[in-house]
Amino acid sequence: MNQLPIRRRRHARFRAVTNHISDSTVHRLSKYYRTLSMVQSKGVKTISSDSLALQNGVTAAQVRKDLSCFGAFGRRGLGYSVADLKKNIGKIMGLGRTWKVALVGVGNVGRALLDYDQFRLQGFQITLAFDADPTKIGRDFHGITVRDAANLADEVNREAVDIAVIAVPSDYAQATVDKLVAGGVRAILNFAPINITAPNGVFVRHENMAIEIEALAFALTNPDLAKGD
Amino acid sequence: MNQLPIRRRRHARFRAVTNHISDSTVHRLSKYYRTLSMVQSKGVKTISSDSLALQNGVTAAQVRKDLSCFGAFGRRGLGYSVADLKKNIGKIMGLGRTWKVALVGVGNVGRALLDYDQFRLQGFQITLAFDADPTKIGRDFHGITVRDAANLADEVNREAVDIAVIAVPSDYAQATVDKLVAGGVRAILNFAPINITAPNGVFVRHENMAIEIEALAFALTNPDLAKGD
Repeated sequence: MNQLPIRRRRHARFRAVTNHISDSTVHRLSKYYRTLSMVQSKGVKTISSDSLALQNGVTAAQVRKDLSCFGAFGRRGLGYSVADLKKNIGKIMGLGRTWKVALVGVGNVGRALLDYDQFRLQGFQITLAFDADPTKIGRDFHGITVRDAANLADEVNREAVDIAVIAVPSDYAQATVDKLVAGGVRAILNFAPINITAPNGVFVRHENMAIEIEALAFALTNPDLAKGD
Repeated sequence: MNQLPIRRRRHARFRAVTNHISDSTVHRLSKYYRTLSMVQSKGVKTISSDSLALQNGVTAAQVRKDLSCFGAFGRRGLGYSVADLKKNIGKIMGLGRTWKVALVGVGNVGRALLDYDQFRLQGFQITLAFDADPTKIGRDFHGITVRDAANLADEVNREAVDIAVIAVPSDYAQATVDKLVAGGVRAILNFAPINITAPNGVFVRHENMAIEIEALAFALTNPDLAKGD
């Protein structure tokens, strides 16, 4: 299976416009991967797009469309091989390998992330943690010794960090990004509730843990308009 | 302004099919609300759909389409009144009021949520916390005394909890949902990495803090296919 869609090679000059995969598709691929891991652990060998769809609250047509972005994985009427599909989605998503992650900010959210199974299970290994608070520097949390954030750029550079997770107060978020970028980090996950900017070529994603509870407030306020579960 | 779209009243019998607002729209409304709060705090009085779009990484057409689901808020060429639009989105979303929230599971994630500003700021007040661990029951975390999860159904019922947040190990998630439903809770935010089911009329949302870091792994693996920031 070829990881790059044929369209990209045919129309390489349109790459930037035509070949972006939407956030929603990427998120759904993550969910399919998780479903496949789960059914695989139960010994299931093949899965239909209907079943994959049902377990993820989408239509079978959506599942087929998402997977078709990357090539044809299944055979009509036979469903997908769980092992193959998991391997292929894993390759596409960059899962099934280890990523070196640095955490900046060892407050409540940061400490929860240091011990968050879902990071470890998916290959995201937080091996460095930084804070600016002198009472935290040098202390151990979940086996990681907190380093001085003053040396952030140098240390992420020396340690060849793949992904940085920012869990600092909002006022420090942009300065933290700037140091990470100076240190060569190309992927940043921001938990601070503020928009941050980074140069082209650096990927930034925002995590807002309040967004789903707000969706519940919407559902309770407009039960007829919200999707049930 | 009328909160319910005209279409709903005209075709009430199609309500369940035609009037669901997509998750993506609801999430974007949350983001617009946050942007409006931010610009309002800086003294900005009016905002264009272009500006609202730019600050949220979407197109102006998308902003206008999202807002048009609920009625016409702005006037062509004049932009939106920040105060009015914020008030209207707040009404739609059920923000700008207080929701009574119960937390179940006072581990690392639960404790981070007890101290999570973005819940409090948006009106989500965690006033009850539960755990099954005898070493945690009776202890205070961030001013909340942990109650015995054995009494969950009775206590959420007596306290008229609006929304429950589940941060228990996966194996206990479904049993926790069942107790919450028995106690009359109609909205559940699940942090456990497992699918849970609830009867019709109970809204369930899943929060997976790994989904955005997986999107970063995708971006690093396929820099040409991912959207930059």
